[in-house]
Amino acid sequence: MENIALLIIDMQNDVLERMVKSGKEIVPNIKNVLNACRQKNIPVIHIVRVHRPEGIDVELFRQKLFSEKPFLVKGSKGAEIIEEIKAVKGEYIVEKQRFSAFFQTELLILLNRLNIKTLALCGVQTPNCIRSTAIDGISYDYNVILLDDATTANTRDVHNANITDMKSMGVKVMKTSELIEILK
Amino acid sequence: MENIALLIIDMQNDVLERMVKSGKEIVPNIKNVLNACRQKNIPVIHIVRVHRPEGIDVELFRQKLFSEKPFLVKGSKGAEIIEEIKAVKGEYIVEKQRFSAFFQTELLILLNRLNIKTLALCGVQTPNCIRSTAIDGISYDYNVILLDDATTANTRDVHNANITDMKSMGVKVMKTSELIEILK
Repeated sequence: MENIALLIIDMQNDVLERMVKSGKEIVPNIKNVLNACRQKNIPVIHIVRVHRPEGIDVELFRQKLFSEKPFLVKGSKGAEIIEEIKAVKGEYIVEKQRFSAFFQTELLILLNRLNIKTLALCGVQTPNCIRSTAIDGISYDYNVILLDDATTANTRDVHNANITDMKSMGVKVMKTSELIEILK
Repeated sequence: MENIALLIIDMQNDVLERMVKSGKEIVPNIKNVLNACRQKNIPVIHIVRVHRPEGIDVELFRQKLFSEKPFLVKGSKGAEIIEEIKAVKGEYIVEKQRFSAFFQTELLILLNRLNIKTLALCGVQTPNCIRSTAIDGISYDYNVILLDDATTANTRDVHNANITDMKSMGVKVMKTSELIEILK
């Protein structure tokens, strides 16, 4: 479990208020693993989705939704990381416009420079941004750990089905308490 | 439905013999849509997974499996597209080493040059290479059509759960007969 980084994905106000309300339930677990990583000086990378006010960088299928009520506009309160787990000095923030944290972002540059080999993923939501990031991580030859009780989806069935798929694609699934124990 | 390309994914001997045996069941549907595309001169891109004989380009989690019994080795019979739907003159073959047909391949170069706006996906298997390609397609702003009865997984439950997820991520799901009707 050397060379690990914690990736916290899309834990932003608009996401938890408007898109994945169940995300609020996993905040305590994310906070626990985040604190453990801070104590051990493990790199923490906050992944956030942000869009331009005019929405030109929103996925095509969400453009109508965005035009009706913009979400995750860069600089807005809604795009901020939730208060409980916001980034502190020494942590990284990577902005993205798509599901995967790797898609057209500088994440790979950071991971290379930090000599990271293992990614621990938490945040929302399991079938979309979590899974896309996990599978890109696998494709780039990282060891990928998914924290089962620090990720969630709109329904448990969707969450669980995605966990099963990801396991068969090489993702290691564990509880936050297991990872925290390993980090000790 | 202009500027469409048909992507046929991983319909190779080793995949259907060893990994996703249910893939044989969708061959007739793929053949139908393939024939329709050939008649209308719609670009056809065969996506194949190939690996080097020593397996250095295999995902880390599959390296043991590969070392025990290599699969999809470039140039081998197992890596060939199945006889029933193999590429003919004027069709493209794109080789990949990971789930997504976009991952570190020249697919985007071809799609740009061909001025493609819509991707119709078929092949195997739904949760892995199909979904990863579909989501990258959405991320690159293509319209993505998934041919429900020309894709499959090891179980129907997994297939159906992935179809549901992909619908909510902007993928349009239709039957081959529907697409064939539209192409007429």
